[in-house]
Amino acid sequence: MTTQYGPSYVRAIAPYVAGKPISEVAREFGLDEAHIVKLASNENPLGMPESAKAAMAQAAADLGRYPDANAFELKAALSEHYGVPADWITLGNGSNDILELAAHALVEKSQSIVYAQYSFAVYGLATQGIGARAIVVPAMKHGHDLDAMLKAIDADTRLMFVANPNNPTGTFIEGPALEAFLEKVPKNVVVVLDEAYTEYLAADKRYDSIAWTRRFPNLLVSRTFSKAFGLAGLRVGFAIAQPELTDLLNRLRQPFNVNTLAQAAAVAALNDRAFLEKSAALNAAGYRRLTEAFDKLDLEYVPSYGNFVLVRVGNDDGAGARVNLALLKQGVIVRPVGNYGLPQWLRVTIGLPEENEAFIAALEKALAPA
Amino acid sequence: MTTQYGPSYVRAIAPYVAGKPISEVAREFGLDEAHIVKLASNENPLGMPESAKAAMAQAAADLGRYPDANAFELKAALSEHYGVPADWITLGNGSNDILELAAHALVEKSQSIVYAQYSFAVYGLATQGIGARAIVVPAMKHGHDLDAMLKAIDADTRLMFVANPNNPTGTFIEGPALEAFLEKVPKNVVVVLDEAYTEYLAADKRYDSIAWTRRFPNLLVSRTFSKAFGLAGLRVGFAIAQPELTDLLNRLRQPFNVNTLAQAAAVAALNDRAFLEKSAALNAAGYRRLTEAFDKLDLEYVPSYGNFVLVRVGNDDGAGARVNLALLKQGVIVRPVGNYGLPQWLRVTIGLPEENEAFIAALEKALAPA
Repeated sequence: MTTQYGPSYVRAIAPYVAGKPISEVAREFGLDEAHIVKLASNENPLGMPESAKAAMAQAAADLGRYPDANAFELKAALSEHYGVPADWITLGNGSNDILELAAHALVEKSQSIVYAQYSFAVYGLATQGIGARAIVVPAMKHGHDLDAMLKAIDADTRLMFVANPNNPTGTFIEGPALEAFLEKVPKNVVVVLDEAYTEYLAADKRYDSIAWTRRFPNLLVSRTFSKAFGLAGLRVGFAIAQPELTDLLNRLRQPFNVNTLAQAAAVAALNDRAFLEKSAALNAAGYRRLTEAFDKLDLEYVPSYGNFVLVRVGNDDGAGARVNLALLKQGVIVRPVGNYGLPQWLRVTIGLPEENEAFIAALEKALAPA
Repeated sequence: MTTQYGPSYVRAIAPYVAGKPISEVAREFGLDEAHIVKLASNENPLGMPESAKAAMAQAAADLGRYPDANAFELKAALSEHYGVPADWITLGNGSNDILELAAHALVEKSQSIVYAQYSFAVYGLATQGIGARAIVVPAMKHGHDLDAMLKAIDADTRLMFVANPNNPTGTFIEGPALEAFLEKVPKNVVVVLDEAYTEYLAADKRYDSIAWTRRFPNLLVSRTFSKAFGLAGLRVGFAIAQPELTDLLNRLRQPFNVNTLAQAAAVAALNDRAFLEKSAALNAAGYRRLTEAFDKLDLEYVPSYGNFVLVRVGNDDGAGARVNLALLKQGVIVRPVGNYGLPQWLRVTIGLPEENEAFIAALEKALAPA
């Protein structure tokens, strides 16, 4: 008999399967890497802002030293920008780290966590990783059903994950509805409001969740520098909450979780409003172009508030995988979402204009009768 | 009554207090930053190797993209270098991440973890972080008492942490003794062998722990690029173990835990043997210089196999804090270890020759009768 290591709830986690890197797709399909278009991971197609590159170059002189465990400069910049004291801020190795820290710091094995069907995969992984019970609330029009989520709260519920906009569906909850929901959540249940895509919202859709953290001691707002800010490869995210919650997360946080270059680049990116505006405008134009094409192709899509669109590429459960393969053969990488229970759909990141055109052309070809 | 968030074992963790950054010491003591010597965090005083800087610059072109979640190139380099398949490797955001992943993946709340008194602080934090029970085995001559550690294993013990060389004491267990110990550990208890400082060992002290992973399915060897390799600011560590253990850790690992630049720099540093040799030679010379000075000052020290020395600066429990303050006033930052239960001692990192001289001069002054 061989020894089985680890708790059963860890052994039950599905091994992680990474997305196909460009080099692998090139090898597998005999394509030139330079012609492959990757619209699979909701990154900013403009890449990293020049301001952040310059800041990074300056910080690169001293990489033999550990990072600043307290991230003095980045916290000062966030503090000024968002109008909260430094002890309301938790830094993460990407917002994935924030989501995991929240689960670990707030929930014990046997307690439960509430989140929505078709919301970000990490909520389920963070729940499984601590042996907690997942209460997955059926989606409404591919988005969060907040009333149903409130009703789903159990006596042992300690945490809820709410994504706004949501990934992978792109749905959005209006500010007033979200605020009314927060009023109703019991104070012993913490709400992690995951706003990874918030910088893409149009002006008339914005709401001030940071201000809400002053009113709701059980609210933790999670943000990332991996999307609109263009720093996915460097890894930095942050959370804002009242000091009691922030202190708990920081007790579990690995002191050097955010590397030196990420700290420096984030300070610069945070204050580069021109880059953010350019990114949002590019995204809005790309969204119009993609959805026009979907309309023309008579494809259903979920109206999106992020930098990606969920599109239904067929009415049978083989459609997502089939069209994905047809796109891969043409050198276009998007994200199949069968693992989310959406086998008829694909999630496509909004890219540069030429990337969007390449995707649309490949999609038309993929959908054309053989 | 206010709501208390989080499990009691998380609330019981002492909030992290970071070391004093150079800028803060300069401000507090009215000193010039350029003249401050920091020998507090066991970093490589040579900084990052040039080879790694070049690799990093190349990788910096694409930081808007997420890192390679599978770290294909870094795993291939580690695989070739250490002679193990890629699926024996777990990558961490520094080896701190590896230590935490091991605790989370292998131990449940209410089970126990064995480690030695005066060993690395993260072992205790990782244990507390999951609500496990710490079995702390009294040290022998400031090092691990392996026989006592074997005897301390309880029915619910699932993990042991063994540091070799140990931090903060610098003690070393000879290879054969360690191997004999591994033979005796029950197979249902995983041993994390933390070899953060192994690259500093003299040739006649080396042993092949990687080869042992083939024989012991319950052995996980943890290494870091933060010490001799000079990449502390970038954050990258790794573990080698058989696939069953490796697979468990990877189920919990955050897919993008190692940033793009760290992956690229680590490949280069791994193959820069000249830099490692230079670092080890500098360290050996610095060790001789510091210990000569301690002998001259009639100060007890623990013979060290790492890049630091634990030195007893007085016979009263106020000694460490007192001498530390006297050093700070002279612009020399070392590490007080009162939190490790060693209030009469200071840990000093071996620096560049001029840094060692500055430390020795400041120490002489600090110890001189007023």
